[in-house]
Amino acid sequence: MTQPTPRTRVARIPDRGHYDAATIYAILDAAHLCHVGFALPQEDGAPPPPPQPFVTPTLFGRDGDQVYFHGSAASRMLRHAAGGFPVCLEVTIEDAIVLARSAFHHSMNYRSVVVLGTAELVTETAQKLRALEIIAENVVPGRWADVRAPYEQELKATSVLRLPLNEASAKIRTGPPKDEEEDYSLPIWAGILPLRQTAGELQPDPRLTPGIEIPEYLRKLSIG
Amino acid sequence: MTQPTPRTRVARIPDRGHYDAATIYAILDAAHLCHVGFALPQEDGAPPPPPQPFVTPTLFGRDGDQVYFHGSAASRMLRHAAGGFPVCLEVTIEDAIVLARSAFHHSMNYRSVVVLGTAELVTETAQKLRALEIIAENVVPGRWADVRAPYEQELKATSVLRLPLNEASAKIRTGPPKDEEEDYSLPIWAGILPLRQTAGELQPDPRLTPGIEIPEYLRKLSIG
Repeated sequence: MTQPTPRTRVARIPDRGHYDAATIYAILDAAHLCHVGFALPQEDGAPPPPPQPFVTPTLFGRDGDQVYFHGSAASRMLRHAAGGFPVCLEVTIEDAIVLARSAFHHSMNYRSVVVLGTAELVTETAQKLRALEIIAENVVPGRWADVRAPYEQELKATSVLRLPLNEASAKIRTGPPKDEEEDYSLPIWAGILPLRQTAGELQPDPRLTPGIEIPEYLRKLSIG
Repeated sequence: MTQPTPRTRVARIPDRGHYDAATIYAILDAAHLCHVGFALPQEDGAPPPPPQPFVTPTLFGRDGDQVYFHGSAASRMLRHAAGGFPVCLEVTIEDAIVLARSAFHHSMNYRSVVVLGTAELVTETAQKLRALEIIAENVVPGRWADVRAPYEQELKATSVLRLPLNEASAKIRTGPPKDEEEDYSLPIWAGILPLRQTAGELQPDPRLTPGIEIPEYLRKLSIG
């Protein structure tokens, strides 16, 4: 994964493309939500019908050189992806709005990863539990060991997919705006507005049994 | 758009599906980043080759019953979408991590919209400028009027696409976790951790001309 494939090479602004595992893994590990793209044949198109793409947001987690994502075994996305059709798993972290002096040079600072490939169903129980733990721990570290483990019928109702990271690329923009040289003298404020996802104050379930304290691993996630 | 189509009907947990314009527009208007899914035929597959889906993050804006998105005229995604192929435009707003007592019932609170359809290129100059203004104002209200307008060659280098909102659906989860009845007595903390995107302190361009004040429309976006 240190070389792009023709499909993952960043064509627009190639300087923003990165293909090393360290860069790609760091972006994946900083995110918990991905968008999975898949394409279904259309029944009503003239032959050959153009496929209809779909994009589904879902939680994920990385383990070494693969990512796991999961959902209901009845989900259209998971059933399709498990059928050996190509998927695209995409992660975007927004870092800033880039405020240039010209409308044209406005941009975002971001870190994104695109993974192309074919996912496979994780069927063995111990592997499936381990994959679910990896996804859960990627969202809230410490949670998995604290909660009631899945029953067998819950595991059966859940599909877990494994996608290898051998065809992936990152795209990153950082830094201030880049304006046309003649625009730098314009009397327009320029710079960046940083963005980040922040956690609010934990809100207890109305049915929470009185006396249960917020565990430390959750307390440190909250900024409330 | 008050009735789902077979392709936009929320199949998993139908109670979370919404098809009215007010709900869909409110979610779109609360977001600025979307993910556009598209599918390209694969050259190396056995006939008929399965299409390869791609997902590209991009900024967007809504105007009435259509959304605009844009990018480099050379972008693969925009060239494909402008060619009349079906696309999927997806928006996700994460509202909270839902911490249930069982691993299985963990979830997210979110608002998402899926739009299916075929986009068309906006070619007329005034319409194109207006569409770019709508996208810009959806990201930073007040910015468009303050910056240097696009030159003709900048407009030519930019593709703007219009996607109608006539096949769209929203999916929303709100509220506390829903556990199995017998799990409510477990001594496990349960509730939600709210998430939101926040803006940091504006960082001036190192090349900013001294003496240019931060305009009010930007100052109020910052929490620094």
